[in-house]
Amino acid sequence: MRIKTENGIIDVPAVWIETEDPNDPETWSLKGIDQTKIPYQLEFFILHQWKDIPLAIKEMIVRGAPTIGATAALGMVLTVRDVLRSKEIIEKPLKILNAAAGQFLNSRPTAVDLRNGVLAVLDAVNTENDVKRWPFFALEAARKFVDKIVQDGKLIGIHGKKLIKNGHKILTHCNAGPLAHVDYGSALSPILQAHQKGKKIFTWIDETRPRLQGAKLTSWELQQNDIPHCVIADNTAGFLMQKGEIDMVIVGADRVVRNGDIANKIGTYSLSVLAKEHDIPFYVAFPTSTIDLTIKNGKDIPIEMRDPKEVTHVLGWRHGKWMQVAITPEGTNALNYAFDITPARYISGYITPVGVFSDFKELLTKLKDPINS
Amino acid sequence: MRIKTENGIIDVPAVWIETEDPNDPETWSLKGIDQTKIPYQLEFFILHQWKDIPLAIKEMIVRGAPTIGATAALGMVLTVRDVLRSKEIIEKPLKILNAAAGQFLNSRPTAVDLRNGVLAVLDAVNTENDVKRWPFFALEAARKFVDKIVQDGKLIGIHGKKLIKNGHKILTHCNAGPLAHVDYGSALSPILQAHQKGKKIFTWIDETRPRLQGAKLTSWELQQNDIPHCVIADNTAGFLMQKGEIDMVIVGADRVVRNGDIANKIGTYSLSVLAKEHDIPFYVAFPTSTIDLTIKNGKDIPIEMRDPKEVTHVLGWRHGKWMQVAITPEGTNALNYAFDITPARYISGYITPVGVFSDFKELLTKLKDPINS
Repeated sequence: MRIKTENGIIDVPAVWIETEDPNDPETWSLKGIDQTKIPYQLEFFILHQWKDIPLAIKEMIVRGAPTIGATAALGMVLTVRDVLRSKEIIEKPLKILNAAAGQFLNSRPTAVDLRNGVLAVLDAVNTENDVKRWPFFALEAARKFVDKIVQDGKLIGIHGKKLIKNGHKILTHCNAGPLAHVDYGSALSPILQAHQKGKKIFTWIDETRPRLQGAKLTSWELQQNDIPHCVIADNTAGFLMQKGEIDMVIVGADRVVRNGDIANKIGTYSLSVLAKEHDIPFYVAFPTSTIDLTIKNGKDIPIEMRDPKEVTHVLGWRHGKWMQVAITPEGTNALNYAFDITPARYISGYITPVGVFSDFKELLTKLKDPINS
Repeated sequence: MRIKTENGIIDVPAVWIETEDPNDPETWSLKGIDQTKIPYQLEFFILHQWKDIPLAIKEMIVRGAPTIGATAALGMVLTVRDVLRSKEIIEKPLKILNAAAGQFLNSRPTAVDLRNGVLAVLDAVNTENDVKRWPFFALEAARKFVDKIVQDGKLIGIHGKKLIKNGHKILTHCNAGPLAHVDYGSALSPILQAHQKGKKIFTWIDETRPRLQGAKLTSWELQQNDIPHCVIADNTAGFLMQKGEIDMVIVGADRVVRNGDIANKIGTYSLSVLAKEHDIPFYVAFPTSTIDLTIKNGKDIPIEMRDPKEVTHVLGWRHGKWMQVAITPEGTNALNYAFDITPARYISGYITPVGVFSDFKELLTKLKDPINS
């Protein structure tokens, strides 16, 4: 992704494996942008041991469903390496690996990309007998998984930008840009590419309480790309729709299930209802790694409940430091669903790497067709 | 209103005129609760000169449409006194008074109670020839205006509590409790009185960005009254409705116009759309001072646009101090509509001092009938 620094523009993904010596897994580490520091500090984290990675996901140092999936896949590479390092468990490494994988799966329950990332690596090593070569197979599988996400982001933009007309005002919620998607983005990819194509567009950004990913991350990303934008409180979108100030809504997804229902950041469902009431198209953009065919109905997607302190407190920047301030009386109860469910009937279209579909069944048919998908 | 202090429970209104010597207007001052300090500090402001009062309204030291109206009425008492003090303008005091009144009217444009409070005092002195007695007439008129608001709040509760069933979960937005209404409250009055009657109720509180009146003020008021409650981010209400966790919505109003449209805190409109989609009753509670028959249609209500900094920054409490932290990258644009318009078609009922009406025309008929209003 494009980032303006004091030394000029750099181009980095949200997360990657650094291999000092590609032939020596002991030199490998997981590196990426610390998303809890954006927009005030550009810091890169380095994790050397697999055990620190699930916590980094839980604490949202990396976040966004596809980036979480990528982190899980790349993290599993270090897991494979670290598990094999312990001599006492060398006899049943797959059992240990599975147990370790469980820690990834438990770190955040809603994004299915995480499971897909873990499975991509487990499946790769599972079919290989030469245990010593496992880290290399794992790295290859993980990189393939991540490359697919990046490529999917690019394709989402290519298909999605066609929906955006010159002069459009687009609302987005939370962060579904390059940070959330290793690169390119899901919801933001069509916006970035429409802008690159020279279309004059404007983006409304929901601040996205409680963690403020819109205010902190999406606004930063659009700043890096010089796309005109404006941040609003989450409760303002309805009034802007009433006033005719929003032409379309594009959001990302954390899980898309068989009937076309989606889980995405809390507040997405409300936006979809408001968009429908105002006849404004409501699009959901996601890579194929976000689709979960094991679940039939949105109601069955596990919804993460996070610490109420994220609601009762706000983390912001003051005098060159991060500070957390309280906004409720001491002892106040708060509820913190991290995601909500948007039923398929509120969704005007699915923007995917294989095209835009108003009917989810058509997307599934397309994906089943190996020639065209 | 009931406030728990270290020295026990006290009972004070949100704002009042303190008359050290009732016969000497020079000893009069405006006193009230500094609402920018709640919930962390209980501080009372004292204003001795009229000129400081419009700023106190603008800065939201007092806020909530009826409390703003009361402050304007009581503030005009000091205005009358101060204007008469200047000998050079004694010949045309009403002209000067009108100019001063303009400063009140400009302090916040949306709440009509403000205008009604100013006019209540202007009208009272306008018909009196004895200019020296004006401060006393003004005080009498202002107190009558404020007493009506308080009485209206009580009556709103008496009528509104009948709508609340045992076990109900009620959502409210912003603050429409005693702080906003001198005492009792508008939206909160039915909740307070249902609780006092022993009904088992639960209140969801929208935090209400950007100024967080729900998180800071409503939660504090419900704490003072031991009513079970939980704060949520504004974007969460839709999902709670989808899950069947909200039985009714009650909000206040800053202006109610002839066709039954209302202006209220930004976010109210979105809630009304969501409530309709889920067949959840959506009630608006207000005193008669909030009705503005000079405006036909909600679209014509002036909507206050406040400083974008209220969106890009959050004011909270840390280590015994108020602190403002930034939540967007430097230079980020933000839009800060303080209110929005909810058309009458989304409103299930108007909870007023003269009863609950599903049809706004019936309320107007009732108010025109001098025997029953």
